[in-house]
Amino acid sequence: MTSDELYSQILTKKSYLCVGLDTDLRKIPPSLLQEDDPVFAFNRAIIDATADFCVAYKPNIAFYEAQGARGWESLRKTLEYIPKTHFTIADAKRGDIGNTSGLYARTFFDKTAAGLDFDAVTVAPYMGHDSVEPFLEYKNKWVILLALTSNPGGDDFQRLTVEGKPLYEQVLTTSQTWADADRLMYVVGATQADALRHIRQIIPDHFLLVPGVGAQGGSLEEVSRHGMNQKCGLLVNASRSILYASDGPAFAEKARAEARSIQAEMEQYLFEFMGS
Amino acid sequence: MTSDELYSQILTKKSYLCVGLDTDLRKIPPSLLQEDDPVFAFNRAIIDATADFCVAYKPNIAFYEAQGARGWESLRKTLEYIPKTHFTIADAKRGDIGNTSGLYARTFFDKTAAGLDFDAVTVAPYMGHDSVEPFLEYKNKWVILLALTSNPGGDDFQRLTVEGKPLYEQVLTTSQTWADADRLMYVVGATQADALRHIRQIIPDHFLLVPGVGAQGGSLEEVSRHGMNQKCGLLVNASRSILYASDGPAFAEKARAEARSIQAEMEQYLFEFMGS
Repeated sequence: MTSDELYSQILTKKSYLCVGLDTDLRKIPPSLLQEDDPVFAFNRAIIDATADFCVAYKPNIAFYEAQGARGWESLRKTLEYIPKTHFTIADAKRGDIGNTSGLYARTFFDKTAAGLDFDAVTVAPYMGHDSVEPFLEYKNKWVILLALTSNPGGDDFQRLTVEGKPLYEQVLTTSQTWADADRLMYVVGATQADALRHIRQIIPDHFLLVPGVGAQGGSLEEVSRHGMNQKCGLLVNASRSILYASDGPAFAEKARAEARSIQAEMEQYLFEFMGS
Repeated sequence: MTSDELYSQILTKKSYLCVGLDTDLRKIPPSLLQEDDPVFAFNRAIIDATADFCVAYKPNIAFYEAQGARGWESLRKTLEYIPKTHFTIADAKRGDIGNTSGLYARTFFDKTAAGLDFDAVTVAPYMGHDSVEPFLEYKNKWVILLALTSNPGGDDFQRLTVEGKPLYEQVLTTSQTWADADRLMYVVGATQADALRHIRQIIPDHFLLVPGVGAQGGSLEEVSRHGMNQKCGLLVNASRSILYASDGPAFAEKARAEARSIQAEMEQYLFEFMGS
């Protein structure tokens, strides 16, 4: 999916919501456990319930890997079920030396390899340019590079001063030479709203993937106020607050209501902050 | 496996060789492609051929993921086949926020999850302490943290100066507070032999996992001279030079000869450099 196509979806849906498919067998409604593939059954219901209100889906690969071969099959079926109108992100946080990153790129982008063809994959920056470049060899596919994360350990290294500026800023500026805003996005945690204004000065045009709203405590209003650009430029992720809105038989209706409520708030912020 | 058990294996085998099981369907002998599971058939032959001369095996997970569910099954069977005398490393370079890293830890350490129980997993440091700690909750399991890698992009961030010292050194010192030398190792590329002496001053006791000898151009002698400590403290990885020593019917014999040759060189360096 191109940047323009994604922006067009945002305008159509009046939403920049990404639903995180962090599906945990220990948290889904017990009634689903008798299905052949409970994870896929849950995801299918969540996708049906939320597709009207979001523009992207983001399975975190850890949740699928933890079930080995079976989990990879659930992931493949889930990706196939997501409507082609929606942007898909493999939240994998991969990164290795060049030829090995090339295999990770095949895994997530080349359907003939593992049966997957995500639009984007999250990548860790520590190993530098040749760990990222193999992902950029796929046309219309995206790298979403970790910049400033929302977890407590994010401060251990990301905010250390490197040659006069924080390390995450060094990651932003160095990676500008690897690809432009049509191929590269950045992860910036919602709990870092104070840094978002500064980040927008450095990268005015790039999309930001923002996790951490809801369960992790970030404010959607603050993120939107400081992070939005003239073409929205935000994908804000919510996982647990939607997926586990209820563990009863009405879980899908509750998930739909939660997604609808976030979309309504986003519609207001698009009107208020886009291009301001 | 404990640090003492690993050291004991090194003394028994007179080797600190780790065989990297980076098994690529496009490179294995064509005759194996008719097997039910060619990747496992190849790995089994390589393990049989090399187990006498190495102390560890390290499948790089990218090679298995690139085949989806099928690849995860090959990985599971391979790990089960490796003798219990050998240290096993999931070269996964994972790392995510705490609860998600917890799932990656389950994946690789808890046999009831994905059928895997590696001794160690490689982890990327960018997301800090809470991305590493969940792996340390498993008894006698290890984290091998990326410090200074052997690829060209390693220089993009790892050698930048952070508060007076290179970032990789900051990673070494900060992570000392997370676990001791019985739970934590570091990845240091063999092409960084000049930095090894300096790294040994900072972390005299930790094991280092050293990839990059052979195909990537690092020197085993230089790595051993500068990196060895009084209990060896090195696991040196070789992948392609052993796995693809031949693609003919005698591939296993050629792999065995290559592993034996590396072991013979290591025996000499253990005598020459250990404790010097």
